[in-house]
Amino acid sequence: MIPGPVEYEHDVLAAMSRPTYAHTSKEFTEVFRSALENTMRVFGAKEGLPFVIAGSGTLAMEIATVNFIKRDSSVLVVSTGYFGDRFVDLLSRFAKKVEVYRTPLGRPADPKEVYERASKGGYDLVTVTHVDTSTGVRNNVKEIANGFRDLDTLLVVDGVCSIGGEEFSMEWGADVAFTASQKALGTPPGLAVGVVGPKALKAMEKVQPLSFYSDLRKWRDILNSYMQGKAAYFATPAVNLIYALDVSLNSILKEGLDNRVKRHEIIAESIRAAIRSLGLKMIPEEGAYANTISVQFLPEMVKQSSFLSDAERFGAVFAGGLVPEIKERYFRIGHMGSITASEVLIAVGAIERALKKNGYDVDLGKGIAAAEEVLFKNGF
Amino acid sequence: MIPGPVEYEHDVLAAMSRPTYAHTSKEFTEVFRSALENTMRVFGAKEGLPFVIAGSGTLAMEIATVNFIKRDSSVLVVSTGYFGDRFVDLLSRFAKKVEVYRTPLGRPADPKEVYERASKGGYDLVTVTHVDTSTGVRNNVKEIANGFRDLDTLLVVDGVCSIGGEEFSMEWGADVAFTASQKALGTPPGLAVGVVGPKALKAMEKVQPLSFYSDLRKWRDILNSYMQGKAAYFATPAVNLIYALDVSLNSILKEGLDNRVKRHEIIAESIRAAIRSLGLKMIPEEGAYANTISVQFLPEMVKQSSFLSDAERFGAVFAGGLVPEIKERYFRIGHMGSITASEVLIAVGAIERALKKNGYDVDLGKGIAAAEEVLFKNGF
Amino acid sequence: MIPGPVEYEHDVLAAMSRPTYAHTSKEFTEVFRSALENTMRVFGAKEGLPFVIAGSGTLAMEIATVNFIKRDSSVLVVSTGYFGDRFVDLLSRFAKKVEVYRTPLGRPADPKEVYERASKGGYDLVTVTHVDTSTGVRNNVKEIANGFRDLDTLLVVDGVCSIGGEEFSMEWGADVAFTASQKALGTPPGLAVGVVGPKALKAMEKVQPLSFYSDLRKWRDILNSYMQGKAAYFATPAVNLIYALDVSLNSILKEGLDNRVKRHEIIAESIRAAIRSLGLKMIPEEGAYANTISVQFLPEMVKQSSFLSDAERFGAVFAGGLVPEIKERYFRIGHMGSITASEVLIAVGAIERALKKNGYDVDLGKGIAAAEEVLFKNGF
Amino acid sequence: MIPGPVEYEHDVLAAMSRPTYAHTSKEFTEVFRSALENTMRVFGAKEGLPFVIAGSGTLAMEIATVNFIKRDSSVLVVSTGYFGDRFVDLLSRFAKKVEVYRTPLGRPADPKEVYERASKGGYDLVTVTHVDTSTGVRNNVKEIANGFRDLDTLLVVDGVCSIGGEEFSMEWGADVAFTASQKALGTPPGLAVGVVGPKALKAMEKVQPLSFYSDLRKWRDILNSYMQGKAAYFATPAVNLIYALDVSLNSILKEGLDNRVKRHEIIAESIRAAIRSLGLKMIPEEGAYANTISVQFLPEMVKQSSFLSDAERFGAVFAGGLVPEIKERYFRIGHMGSITASEVLIAVGAIERALKKNGYDVDLGKGIAAAEEVLFKNGF
Repeated sequence: MIPGPVEYEHDVLAAMSRPTYAHTSKEFTEVFRSALENTMRVFGAKEGLPFVIAGSGTLAMEIATVNFIKRDSSVLVVSTGYFGDRFVDLLSRFAKKVEVYRTPLGRPADPKEVYERASKGGYDLVTVTHVDTSTGVRNNVKEIANGFRDLDTLLVVDGVCSIGGEEFSMEWGADVAFTASQKALGTPPGLAVGVVGPKALKAMEKVQPLSFYSDLRKWRDILNSYMQGKAAYFATPAVNLIYALDVSLNSILKEGLDNRVKRHEIIAESIRAAIRSLGLKMIPEEGAYANTISVQFLPEMVKQSSFLSDAERFGAVFAGGLVPEIKERYFRIGHMGSITASEVLIAVGAIERALKKNGYDVDLGKGIAAAEEVLFKNGF
Repeated sequence: MIPGPVEYEHDVLAAMSRPTYAHTSKEFTEVFRSALENTMRVFGAKEGLPFVIAGSGTLAMEIATVNFIKRDSSVLVVSTGYFGDRFVDLLSRFAKKVEVYRTPLGRPADPKEVYERASKGGYDLVTVTHVDTSTGVRNNVKEIANGFRDLDTLLVVDGVCSIGGEEFSMEWGADVAFTASQKALGTPPGLAVGVVGPKALKAMEKVQPLSFYSDLRKWRDILNSYMQGKAAYFATPAVNLIYALDVSLNSILKEGLDNRVKRHEIIAESIRAAIRSLGLKMIPEEGAYANTISVQFLPEMVKQSSFLSDAERFGAVFAGGLVPEIKERYFRIGHMGSITASEVLIAVGAIERALKKNGYDVDLGKGIAAAEEVLFKNGF
Repeated sequence: MIPGPVEYEHDVLAAMSRPTYAHTSKEFTEVFRSALENTMRVFGAKEGLPFVIAGSGTLAMEIATVNFIKRDSSVLVVSTGYFGDRFVDLLSRFAKKVEVYRTPLGRPADPKEVYERASKGGYDLVTVTHVDTSTGVRNNVKEIANGFRDLDTLLVVDGVCSIGGEEFSMEWGADVAFTASQKALGTPPGLAVGVVGPKALKAMEKVQPLSFYSDLRKWRDILNSYMQGKAAYFATPAVNLIYALDVSLNSILKEGLDNRVKRHEIIAESIRAAIRSLGLKMIPEEGAYANTISVQFLPEMVKQSSFLSDAERFGAVFAGGLVPEIKERYFRIGHMGSITASEVLIAVGAIERALKKNGYDVDLGKGIAAAEEVLFKNGF
Repeated sequence: MIPGPVEYEHDVLAAMSRPTYAHTSKEFTEVFRSALENTMRVFGAKEGLPFVIAGSGTLAMEIATVNFIKRDSSVLVVSTGYFGDRFVDLLSRFAKKVEVYRTPLGRPADPKEVYERASKGGYDLVTVTHVDTSTGVRNNVKEIANGFRDLDTLLVVDGVCSIGGEEFSMEWGADVAFTASQKALGTPPGLAVGVVGPKALKAMEKVQPLSFYSDLRKWRDILNSYMQGKAAYFATPAVNLIYALDVSLNSILKEGLDNRVKRHEIIAESIRAAIRSLGLKMIPEEGAYANTISVQFLPEMVKQSSFLSDAERFGAVFAGGLVPEIKERYFRIGHMGSITASEVLIAVGAIERALKKNGYDVDLGKGIAAAEEVLFKNGF
């Protein structure tokens, strides 16, 4: 239950070991076409260019930004944690001016403030992290995106810890959005996945390439060709991962995006109920909780490394911290993908026993009782 | 039997669907460490930094070059086909001056000429394609590399169609070498794999980053950490592909690199015997044949698209051409990885029947007879 | 290329490792229902009871006979090889009188003679082996079965080496027929598969049980219940094998029974063409050849054990003999299931090289040439 | 969490889809040899004949009895539930006199009484069910077996719901013991597994065959041959299931039999703690509880079918009853094989919610709290 790689469905993993058809074969071409179309659907995109490229979420960040900025561009980064700050590192290499709107720990960005800064700053591009995996803070991307409809500035949404588990739609006003296969899309790691909207595609025309592998101009014709059922070549696609992605996207669409988001919401609520009943403090402010990840402080007496290894022995793998100043004082529970009530019980049970093992006074079963109330009330 | 993705062994594909352990887990850390060490062995490298990064061979090309050049660098590209020329496209973005030593179709580079150009040109970096997948021409990398021992210029070897199937060693004098998982390494596509030698690592220190995802300065500590059995994070590794890579590398080392190269050599010889007996003309000159791929012209009367689809129906998938002027006049047979005598019979049989079907007068069985003689003589 | 276990399709093997649902679950019940219905179709049965029971073909033989005979029964065994004779061993335990109509080596049974013996002998049951795996002799079951329409005697057809590869239909007049999963049904070993027709079901009513696990009275209600989509229990079914069987039966029906038989026929013809051109002598008489297996003598100078191990090294596993007097003088090539032209080339190539290796004077490629002519003529 | 098929480890399921080697191949012969040897170890047997035969546990019952009785034999069945009674049905077909020592519901057999009956009755064979899956009652097989050391009568132990999860050893004095692959051996269903001790092997010599497929005289030479690393043929073995069995047996031996039994014991204790705290009544008497299965009455107000389908929706599949008079009044929780604390939480959580859903007043979390106390105390 780290925030990705998550546990994958049997059918998704089984697809990984199907014989690897040639990337030019009819069989693979059809699977890739389907995966690209399904990517559009899962991103709530009616138009634009989907991309599925061998690489990680870090590559997706690069693809989603370097194709739209010039050497003399100004950009704004909206940061609510480690992954927001990472955009600063990345963009500083490619843009002239990188400004940051950084919120205090646990607080989401104020959509009005984003709008004001964006409309005045003369930026080519603004990035926002939907859910920052390091803090669990969820930004109100819907409202933020709405403001960009009448701006020339592009809005790039980092949906790595959200798409497939949080409500999201390109139609809200985002210009580029991306994620990685191994998060809420429920596919093993190795694919950068995203959608580029019409405004961004137009902006791309005027940009001189700053990269090669992440140059969307190279990929555009290839992806469009596969979208029309014809093979084309720029770099060999990760055939087996694309098999698995397509199985997973089909499973997502079969469940229904609304049902899937609702399921993640209930799971998240049940975990928070348990966390609170055990007396732990969440990092995100009330109202800024994510569906996909829960981030909370450990009791002061509890040593993180000892807690994490005990929890693993008790059945659940959690992640430590990423925010530098406090990285050893909190832990993160990922709950994305095919997550069910059963995993909630396992996770909370492991937390209870690991806390007790590490000297924190806890009534075993108390957290689970709180979680079960939420689950039962919702028919889970 | 296209030049990759090739057919993979059962154990390699089975590893693809193992449960995806967290990239921070002990289980995965151990597998990644093993895969990196095995990469060193398969590249014949005693020192330096191995890399295994989610992406394609195209990414590997970028990693193997952009980390060692500056905006004002001069570079030399030794080109014996499409993939040589591709370096020109790539390097033109990052270097000031890109010069090309291009041979006539089918002819390998003259090692002396490479040495002379390299020693006089003041280049930061020279690239050479060991086996160009588009023409099947194999360069004498051993002799070329030998010349670089006393030069400051770095030698980058594109081993995409060679490493794992042709004799190769970093110790010959190469500074950087790379391949992609799906070729002679026998792993599904999705990993850029390579080794950076000591001279290149030193050169890297002085270079300002021109990229992000392909910036080896970001990866160096991560890879070194995994090499020492400790997890670290820059981008989530493609866990399942790395499982599969490790299984495949272990299988390569178990067979023995010498045995493996010898096997590829005999297979290649048997295919060429068949090709000649059927009256077709190879593209590479005598002596420039590869172990991993055979490239030959079709008889004039035979239409490529029809030939390829008939051959597929008869049991073997071949690839068309990539060299622009003649791309529809030749075809390519990949014979890398776990290839055996059985696939030779299938391939040659399919060629015979597809040629006959397309109006070329051929005695069925004649090519196979020639191939079998070579196989039998070698105990295959 | 032994006569089973054969090579299985990827999807069939993949089904083997699906999570094992409870035998009472809706998921499994639906798969079992489908597998039973598909069994009826593949056996060409419009009415009667299909059975799929954990066990081997030997169990299927027992099920197909002991349920229809009493302690004082007389039975007739039509034997064209080892598997015919095996019925004598089996039936001698359960019946009072076991008579045998045994043909000379290589000759099929004369349908008229079977009819005459059956109509005069007062037998409760007659067994006939469609294709005897030990000799490759195919009996004319269509004509034999036709004669049983107006007899009280039951006809039991051993379809182990035929059903799924030879033309067969319960509607011809057979009362019971069976096979094992690992033969022409293309599923790993472990399932006894068959159909009991109406006349046999009626006969079964009057028989006192002579066994327990193979007692169809125990299974009848269970199988009928699963046929109607309801779980029931007598013994836990081999869940994963049934998954695989259903995938394979669906694949058979998708190909079409006629197409499948035709494919086996062409493959068999091409192998015989090769065998003859190499100067080897088939065991079955002209006209008694099977689609699924080819059985031939080795040249006298060739030692069987050496030939078989060389052939394996050259890429094809064949089986030795089973008929006691000559078991070391001949070998058997199974060609059932998902067999294609490619395997013919591999098999014939291996035979050629193994013969040559063992001192038999053979022109390499000659057998393949003969096989390819047949394949090409038929569009393979 | 039904009492088998249970959930299997990834490696066991993965072995199911390995390519099916010929049953005569060196590869398979070695795997089968290993599986047979491992069977001896898991049964705690120093001498005797192990068997692994395609079929179900029902076949194993037949094999374990019919090979040792004659038409005029007397046998005693010790019955503590449905599966004890099943021996009566089976043995009545083959033996002249079948006597039964049946205990009241929930009570185990008294070892002294078994000894007395066995020593006076002149029986050829006595059967005892170690853990009756229908009632969850565990018999004291150790003490019972001890009494048979000085008797001529054979003791047959039905270990279907015990071997691999309960302490057991052939050395206690049992003459035949058996189980099925899908229970505590952790392998998908389809294999009858057992060991025949020396006294039983001797008795077998004097018995005339009453069956064919289950006739151990047919199998003995085959199994001994595989034990010595040589292939032999009576019926095609279920190759892929045997792969899986060997992986699973190796995993059992790697964990260690003592550790494994201890783990099952703690898991069982934690489940019973939960059951009691929820106010439900166990069927077995105090002291007759099994490690592998827990069987308890439902509250009167709760309808079984509704409870079972709700529990399934809440994440755990349980089994209904098998004892005719009360089959709709109780339910069964299987906890065998790779079971961990996590599954306990899932199961108890599902029971709590399903009980509440069906009108039984339960404090959610109470059962889990009780279970967690036991788990935590034992370091789980």
